[in-house]
Parts: sequence; C-alpha cells; structure tokens
Amino acid sequence: MRFRHHVFVCENQRDPTDPRGCCSARGGEAVRAALKAELKRRGLQGSARANSAGCLDACEHGAVVVVYPEGVWYGGVRPEDVPEIVESHLVGGRPVERLRIRTYD
Amino acid sequence: MRFRHHVFVCENQRDPTDPRGCCSARGGEAVRAALKAELKRRGLQGSARANSAGCLDACEHGAVVVVYPEGVWYGGVRPEDVPEIVESHLVGGRPVERLRIRTYD
Repeated sequence: MRFRHHVFVCENQRDPTDPRGCCSARGGEAVRAALKAELKRRGLQGSARANSAGCLDACEHGAVVVVYPEGVWYGGVRPEDVPEIVESHLVGGRPVERLRIRTYD
Repeated sequence: MRFRHHVFVCENQRDPTDPRGCCSARGGEAVRAALKAELKRRGLQGSARANSAGCLDACEHGAVVVVYPEGVWYGGVRPEDVPEIVESHLVGGRPVERLRIRTYD
C-alpha cells in the first residue's frame, strides 16, 4: 500500500441554486486544508494523504470524507473534527464513530 | 463497503509551463469519462464508482488511476485501456498487470 491511509475529501462545487447542495458549500476545502496541515504538523505526510475528490455521491452528508483502504465514510465533517480523526483513526486505528455515515458501512 | 470498487482518476490541472505536467494534460478527463460510460454500459454503477480526484502525487505516471479498497495503482492509462480494467480487474478480480505502477505496491 502506497499510503497507510488515503483520505479523500469532497470539494465538489455546484451552482448555489442546486437543491442537492455540495461539499464545497459545506466546507470541504477548509476540511482538506485542516487535514493537510494536521498531517504535516504531526509528520504523517508519508503515511497518509489528504486528497481532493470530486463528488463522492453523498451530497446530503457533506462535508464528506472517505478513508481508504478501510472504506470508512464520515459526514458533516468540520475543520475542528480533523485532529480527532487524525489522532483516533489515522494514528490509533479507531474510527471516530460519532462522525461515521453508518448506512455506508 | 459502500462500493465494491471505488476508482479515483486524477484530473488535476497545472499550468502548461509546469515541468511536472499533470494528469489533465495526459488525458485524465477522457479516462474518467470512458470509465463512467463503461460502468454504465455494463450496469456496474452500483458496485463501482468512477470518481474524479485531485493530484494523486504520481504526476510522472499520468494519467493515474487508483482503485480502492485494493490500493492498486495504474499509470499511463488511456481511454482505450478502460474496458480491460473493467473486465479484468473490476469484474474478474485480476488487476491489469501491464498498467500497474509497481513501485507503489
């Protein structure tokens, strides 16, 4: 595995009038920026990557994050959730249960 | 697992003068379009998703595709390679060896 964790953050943008909304409007970019900074701060850039993604088809749950190879989906993620995701999931191997989109397990 | 295969295709764009190049200039969008069409044609949209991705940090290998949860990386992918990836890997479970970026295994 090239990355121990490959983290995809939806940054899809839609027109503001689109009823589906989008993860960009729900803070996707800020979440990815926070994740990138936290990985750097903790020296984890070699083992985990904060990747931008297009639409992950989970618009109603935005901002959405999916972590592979585990296939763990998080919804409603805010930048302030990022340190917990990194500490508990990426470092400790324990997904952050309160943020999981359970229907996707 | 929400998707049996979640396929990320790099569509990152860089300035044409950037020496790293980018997957967009190497056909990333056409590869994803071909993959999306092939999945639809074969009725596989429910089990596999053709996702757009930002830079996958494999620029020299573009166009780059990574398939999760397996973590199989493909480089130099062209639209005409897509039916083989779908048939052999996504349907048959046998990655297309000639396209793999072996250093990422």
